[in-house]
Amino acid sequence: MTYCVGMMLEDGLVLVSDTRTNSGVDNVSTFRKMFSWHVPGDRIITVMTAGNLATTQAVVSQLEERAKAPAERHPSILEAPTMFQVARIVGQAIRDTIAESSGQQGDQGTFGASIILAGQIKGIPPRLFMVYPEGNFIEASPETPFFQIGETKYGRPIVVRAYRPDMTLEEALRLILVSFDSTLRANLSVGLPLDIQVIPKDALRATHDRRIEESDKYFRELSTNWGTSLRAALAALPPYPESVSD
Amino acid sequence: MTYCVGMMLEDGLVLVSDTRTNSGVDNVSTFRKMFSWHVPGDRIITVMTAGNLATTQAVVSQLEERAKAPAERHPSILEAPTMFQVARIVGQAIRDTIAESSGQQGDQGTFGASIILAGQIKGIPPRLFMVYPEGNFIEASPETPFFQIGETKYGRPIVVRAYRPDMTLEEALRLILVSFDSTLRANLSVGLPLDIQVIPKDALRATHDRRIEESDKYFRELSTNWGTSLRAALAALPPYPESVSD
Repeated sequence: MTYCVGMMLEDGLVLVSDTRTNSGVDNVSTFRKMFSWHVPGDRIITVMTAGNLATTQAVVSQLEERAKAPAERHPSILEAPTMFQVARIVGQAIRDTIAESSGQQGDQGTFGASIILAGQIKGIPPRLFMVYPEGNFIEASPETPFFQIGETKYGRPIVVRAYRPDMTLEEALRLILVSFDSTLRANLSVGLPLDIQVIPKDALRATHDRRIEESDKYFRELSTNWGTSLRAALAALPPYPESVSD
Repeated sequence: MTYCVGMMLEDGLVLVSDTRTNSGVDNVSTFRKMFSWHVPGDRIITVMTAGNLATTQAVVSQLEERAKAPAERHPSILEAPTMFQVARIVGQAIRDTIAESSGQQGDQGTFGASIILAGQIKGIPPRLFMVYPEGNFIEASPETPFFQIGETKYGRPIVVRAYRPDMTLEEALRLILVSFDSTLRANLSVGLPLDIQVIPKDALRATHDRRIEESDKYFRELSTNWGTSLRAALAALPPYPESVSD
């Protein structure tokens, strides 16, 4: 599995993805799931992928090739005028790839993949999309300001609870890291290292782009600290109103 | 879906189940999923069920009938000498029920169900089991001191993080209620009211047996308080070691 979170804040976008892929528990590897294209002063586009690794790698390679040699039939995400058009191109790439792999078999589920697409093009606010295997997509809104893909359940309650659109980007990053910590502790199919990207509004670039390794001192400190805080918060909850054991 | 948690502590057992059943989102009902048999001074046996409602109701009805009229071929859980034998009887009932429903079709998945079985028989320590649709079962141990069935992922991180075997039964109950709160907020298929049972070691009865309704003042207070504590804990985490937005 995989775990990726993309979050839209008033101040911009924060994206985090894990790097573990597995086909059964005895075939575990590390692959990057976050890919970014940057045209200085013009646009930053980042995708995070979940699902069949052959599918997602093919999609990313297609986007990459077209970015280098755009043609009318194969528009490049670097030339698309809006993020909506970028989402259409990504959607088309994912649909075509899955159709090609499943071929006559019609077994599209096996080759399925989902993508979180985020970025900003000059003159337009930042946008955040979730692209489905069918090639269609939805956009984040004030009611649904973040997307998760992969192993989403463990890390969801804390995000649902604590997200505020006016958080700073640093606060949002800490929130997402806590969500990852909850997931990592509960499920073997999500694993370090993590890739992080922070894209402030109107910066048109990732101001923070970093990999958190197993040995990362801050992430360990965060994890320990969070565990202690949770236990303290639990101890400080109002006592149950009745005696339960007599 | 469903969410049930059974937890083994040094002081005894704490059990909580929700009551929502659904077949699609447009067919939602409330059904009890916690059932208990009590012979004063001799034993207390409680089961919590998840899965196909027809299967689990049939299993509980069989256990109930046999408790009233035991026969050699159909031993009663009220006469079994140990909780291990009780688990065998429950396992047999679940296996037989699923086999009967699936009949010639062999589609056992559709009729699947799981059961958490907990209790104590006089002279033997309390025991906690998880019974699978195949009728086999596992027992809780110091390494795995709690079982969850149904929609288990949302509520797992906090239990993994905060469980300690020497918690009081009241602390354990609060922990489980927080785990339910996380699940309720993230997934519509788990719903109030909740059924609670607390079985202290050697009491041979449930000293606390109660339903928490939607209007329950304490549960609301707990939920609000927990949300506030989480946000405070998040704000108190060590700051990210680098500036992320410039």
